[in-house]
Amino acid sequence: MAPQDPALDALLAELGALDRELVLLVERRGRAALEVAVRVRALGGSAKDAARATTALAPPVASAAGPFDPHELAVVVELVRAQGAALAEREGQPALHVRRGAGEPDRRLVVRGHPIGGAPIVIAGPCAVESAEQIDATAAFLAARGVRFLRGGAYKPRTSPYDFQGLGEPGLALLSAAARAHGLASVTEVLDPRDVERACEHADVLQVGARNMQNFALLREVGRARRPVVLKRGMAATLDEWLLAAEHVLALGNEELILCERGIRTFEPRTRATLDVSAIALLRQDVPFPIVADVSHPAGRRDILVPLARAALAAGAQGLMVEVHPDPVRARSDAQQQLDFPGFDRFLAALWPDGRVPG
Amino acid sequence: MAPQDPALDALLAELGALDRELVLLVERRGRAALEVAVRVRALGGSAKDAARATTALAPPVASAAGPFDPHELAVVVELVRAQGAALAEREGQPALHVRRGAGEPDRRLVVRGHPIGGAPIVIAGPCAVESAEQIDATAAFLAARGVRFLRGGAYKPRTSPYDFQGLGEPGLALLSAAARAHGLASVTEVLDPRDVERACEHADVLQVGARNMQNFALLREVGRARRPVVLKRGMAATLDEWLLAAEHVLALGNEELILCERGIRTFEPRTRATLDVSAIALLRQDVPFPIVADVSHPAGRRDILVPLARAALAAGAQGLMVEVHPDPVRARSDAQQQLDFPGFDRFLAALWPDGRVPG
Amino acid sequence: MAPQDPALDALLAELGALDRELVLLVERRGRAALEVAVRVRALGGSAKDAARATTALAPPVASAAGPFDPHELAVVVELVRAQGAALAEREGQPALHVRRGAGEPDRRLVVRGHPIGGAPIVIAGPCAVESAEQIDATAAFLAARGVRFLRGGAYKPRTSPYDFQGLGEPGLALLSAAARAHGLASVTEVLDPRDVERACEHADVLQVGARNMQNFALLREVGRARRPVVLKRGMAATLDEWLLAAEHVLALGNEELILCERGIRTFEPRTRATLDVSAIALLRQDVPFPIVADVSHPAGRRDILVPLARAALAAGAQGLMVEVHPDPVRARSDAQQQLDFPGFDRFLAALWPDGRVPG
Amino acid sequence: MAPQDPALDALLAELGALDRELVLLVERRGRAALEVAVRVRALGGSAKDAARATTALAPPVASAAGPFDPHELAVVVELVRAQGAALAEREGQPALHVRRGAGEPDRRLVVRGHPIGGAPIVIAGPCAVESAEQIDATAAFLAARGVRFLRGGAYKPRTSPYDFQGLGEPGLALLSAAARAHGLASVTEVLDPRDVERACEHADVLQVGARNMQNFALLREVGRARRPVVLKRGMAATLDEWLLAAEHVLALGNEELILCERGIRTFEPRTRATLDVSAIALLRQDVPFPIVADVSHPAGRRDILVPLARAALAAGAQGLMVEVHPDPVRARSDAQQQLDFPGFDRFLAALWPDGRVPG
Repeated sequence: MAPQDPALDALLAELGALDRELVLLVERRGRAALEVAVRVRALGGSAKDAARATTALAPPVASAAGPFDPHELAVVVELVRAQGAALAEREGQPALHVRRGAGEPDRRLVVRGHPIGGAPIVIAGPCAVESAEQIDATAAFLAARGVRFLRGGAYKPRTSPYDFQGLGEPGLALLSAAARAHGLASVTEVLDPRDVERACEHADVLQVGARNMQNFALLREVGRARRPVVLKRGMAATLDEWLLAAEHVLALGNEELILCERGIRTFEPRTRATLDVSAIALLRQDVPFPIVADVSHPAGRRDILVPLARAALAAGAQGLMVEVHPDPVRARSDAQQQLDFPGFDRFLAALWPDGRVPG
Repeated sequence: MAPQDPALDALLAELGALDRELVLLVERRGRAALEVAVRVRALGGSAKDAARATTALAPPVASAAGPFDPHELAVVVELVRAQGAALAEREGQPALHVRRGAGEPDRRLVVRGHPIGGAPIVIAGPCAVESAEQIDATAAFLAARGVRFLRGGAYKPRTSPYDFQGLGEPGLALLSAAARAHGLASVTEVLDPRDVERACEHADVLQVGARNMQNFALLREVGRARRPVVLKRGMAATLDEWLLAAEHVLALGNEELILCERGIRTFEPRTRATLDVSAIALLRQDVPFPIVADVSHPAGRRDILVPLARAALAAGAQGLMVEVHPDPVRARSDAQQQLDFPGFDRFLAALWPDGRVPG
Repeated sequence: MAPQDPALDALLAELGALDRELVLLVERRGRAALEVAVRVRALGGSAKDAARATTALAPPVASAAGPFDPHELAVVVELVRAQGAALAEREGQPALHVRRGAGEPDRRLVVRGHPIGGAPIVIAGPCAVESAEQIDATAAFLAARGVRFLRGGAYKPRTSPYDFQGLGEPGLALLSAAARAHGLASVTEVLDPRDVERACEHADVLQVGARNMQNFALLREVGRARRPVVLKRGMAATLDEWLLAAEHVLALGNEELILCERGIRTFEPRTRATLDVSAIALLRQDVPFPIVADVSHPAGRRDILVPLARAALAAGAQGLMVEVHPDPVRARSDAQQQLDFPGFDRFLAALWPDGRVPG
Repeated sequence: MAPQDPALDALLAELGALDRELVLLVERRGRAALEVAVRVRALGGSAKDAARATTALAPPVASAAGPFDPHELAVVVELVRAQGAALAEREGQPALHVRRGAGEPDRRLVVRGHPIGGAPIVIAGPCAVESAEQIDATAAFLAARGVRFLRGGAYKPRTSPYDFQGLGEPGLALLSAAARAHGLASVTEVLDPRDVERACEHADVLQVGARNMQNFALLREVGRARRPVVLKRGMAATLDEWLLAAEHVLALGNEELILCERGIRTFEPRTRATLDVSAIALLRQDVPFPIVADVSHPAGRRDILVPLARAALAAGAQGLMVEVHPDPVRARSDAQQQLDFPGFDRFLAALWPDGRVPG
């Protein structure tokens, strides 16, 4: 508790007056920076040029009189200058598309008649498409349980060049045939900008994986595509880096964006990654686009998929991604974390009373 | 899919026979290691001596004939030897107390009549006890909302030596008076082994904070105390390190243990720590003791406490810890993350339909 | 110290005999796994199929007699089976190219007459090529100080889509003209597999950046190129992931590989990344290819470039990468970490007595 | 490059004038905050009370006219208010002792005649004191090689309660007897505030380990001791947290401080921790006290001790700490990382031409 005293009150009132004066001065400086920006743009300069112009003059040196040391004062002046520069750079530029506007409601997407962004969806399927039988059996099984999104990789990002790299375009055709036969929307990962167009011919939803979150050539190609995109978080990406990666997609006109939290790399060896539920909570506030959570990859094991799925939904996730394979021990990748069919039935039964995805 | 072929089947059958032979040989070796251990203990050696004796002989050199390179073979031999040594070390020793025995049910504690380990509990209160008015007002407020555990620090672990260090023993007395006046159990952190006895005179539950998770002198003193202990996870502790820290408490006979996940340190700057819901899920499997989650510290901000609390409970946490202060902006520590009373009412209302802790 | 006792000695002798038996049995099993592999390959199976075949049979259940619990025994059996599977997979396959063979000497590359892999090299230049004047002035300045490698980005990986993305192909032409005019080899980053061919027409050395370390489409294209490649470590990549990324390049026949440590992401906020000197030390043991260290990016500031450079060289790095710009405050990217010309002169003077790169 | 234009120049001049006005206003506000502080202290308030008083009034609301959104403006106002609060808090308080004053030279300590803080020292010895023979043999060996500081643990911080916990006070006596017999200064770790006094009776230098870096009860006791203290960095401690932990020691009057970097916890599995050479470089700038580097613990293996030691010294470390044991395979702790005598001879020979610590 602050002590009470009239002399103190007078000093505090003066402090308050100085704070109001500060606000007015910073606003005046902001308007001056904007005028600089308008002039630079009129001269043909870029947004960055406009920003740089506002900081072209050296910052003023602190007077000797003040109680602060010059470094502290410089921090304030630099902040005000940086804000002016940011203002100048935004002049004539759009705000970040990825941020939720004031009062902006959640975005809803509809893919093959299936809504995303409201009641929780489930995106399930094998790590990789391996054969027509494998993917068709999986699609039939999932469709019967209310799953509406079938995932399956045709191009696999593999840590080792000697591991199975996916079936390529034939895999895409098998995935999409299986999905259509059972009324599902298909989701598949793209790795190479040159494959995006072909992937769009087959798949309903494109996915950009964690390793490619900052593959800007791929993001641009996917931004030009007319397909919804699931953008996974990079394994050591901050939220701001992830959102700016998403902005690469949005900036090129593709607004059908879905963000997928998949765990971040930490020191803990018992799980493959640490599912970051704070990220889900923060994104649900800051971003209008649907957020889903991949629970298979952060776990890297089957025994905690149910609590991770519950936690992700409780934190606000609007969907789950989970790997399901008819015969995980013979799977060509990620054998240790894919659920088999009975395992997936137990997973659904633990999440929803009637053992089906609701809706 | 593996190809089918009779010659292959014969080779596979041979492989299977060799696997069975391997099991028998490893078991024989295990029994031999145990005999060594029994002999070493009979000669007055310690458990560690017994373990070391089993690896006193140099490992055999791989023969030249084999297909493995010597390094690979050494890994197998070292594993078998290490397991034998572990077996030898356990000979005559108890298993880890902290691990759930086969089929062992969840432990339930009862503190001042309030159960822990079943329906979710809430441990709430200010970061630090600051005055009789502050802690009593908080206790009255919390008790009216079904909270049964009042937290408040008398000894504060402060990063800077120039920050408020807590009221010390007078703070303990204020906390416990407020708790008793309103039928609550009190929870307080201890920092110094020399304070444990005094803390036990006042508080119902002791807490060991994240910074002291491996303060073994403190853990031993707390292990000798006859009070339940909340042991928080260190900010960069693996689950195994945390469980072994808990074992220090259990090994001295204090079995009233509560584990508290409070977030781990990662690279993400938007939150103070990353709440690790996988840890909650894994501990609920591996440990019979109650697990609670502190949501205030990992968040370091108020706006995501509700989704973090929901996620922690969904992952299996049996309770929540949250900081509540009558006037957070004037709080002497952690001002930015403590909830005020209306904020805590909104928090409860978001978690439970009638705005009270159930039960 | 283990106690001495004849009965104990007899028991230890028996343990030693069992260890030798174990080695022989594991080798027999290895040969049996190899025979399985040979048969699977003869039947048209892939290396992975061969590996999987060796584990197609369920592992044997532990007998009831043994002292181990079944889980422990399973770990041994699984290890032996996994080693057999690895042996089977390698059958008929090359070893990892990236690993140093027994007794293999360091690789030396020569680019435009300048050797890499012996005495330390310096790769210097601006973050981005901005103009003919900028890059030519830099090239002239660097050449006069014994620098032989000129870096400069034409395609810039930028976190935000609204930041300067580089000049593209014109930037490549400016870079290579400046390099040739001053007898330097040019180094430039590629982002898009479709740009690799064009980049090869201009640049002497290609670079794959940290964000693209696991951009496998790009790695493959670079693996097909006939140009040396600098592969930077991803910011959260383990050494094994980095080496396997390098293997993607080597597997396609490009053996002119240079690995560049550039810091890993940690919790420490004072530097942009943590330069991992252990990684340099370990790679120098395990890998015959040249290792260099980028000191500008991990520092993210200018004041510790000298000690970081000294530490990197002391740990075994065969070169340094550092950002130098004629006018860093007006630079279009990375302004806060690029050295200006007098700063680079001080940097060289601190590292080498005559203020020049030796050799 | 910013475009050139007279109208722009006029606008820039106005911006410069506003920057100078800003400096004056912030200084005025700083002086007003100081007056508040003086008054609060005169009324009996603490430094924290003084700080809080300056922010007791709500910050002003941004006027509607300005170009910034209220959030941006709030950041500036909050920064200025926070700086004012910091100024108020420092009023009548000492600056941080741990920071190097302007122009302050490096501190030199002398322990038993051996200087610390100039030419590199080596602190070597076993992880734990195990017997008179072991520690005396080590002391004799080290003294003959120019080592002047003998380390050895009597109280061991052990992750598991069932591991060897050290010999306790008898271990202290053995350590100090061995050190004195060979003209060495002894260094030993303390874990419990109650052991500090006894440790001071035997040892020349106290050590606070990584796990206890924020054990404030221990830091305070060590701060009251009249012995030099080696304070190791916590395994996930930021530099600022480490420096504030050191400040706990200095604040109680013990200015014989030595800081020891020992690696930070990261995701990389090949080493036990990541030696942070940037931390060494930054501390050498910011702190006048000696900085040493423990190379054994971050490595967790023997094969990279030489390059780590070279890198630490190159980054500015004024000493090395390394574990040496006469018979590492029989050591009771840290067997895999301790050097044996021939290994330590090779280590010295790699670092210094005559195979001895110079000086």
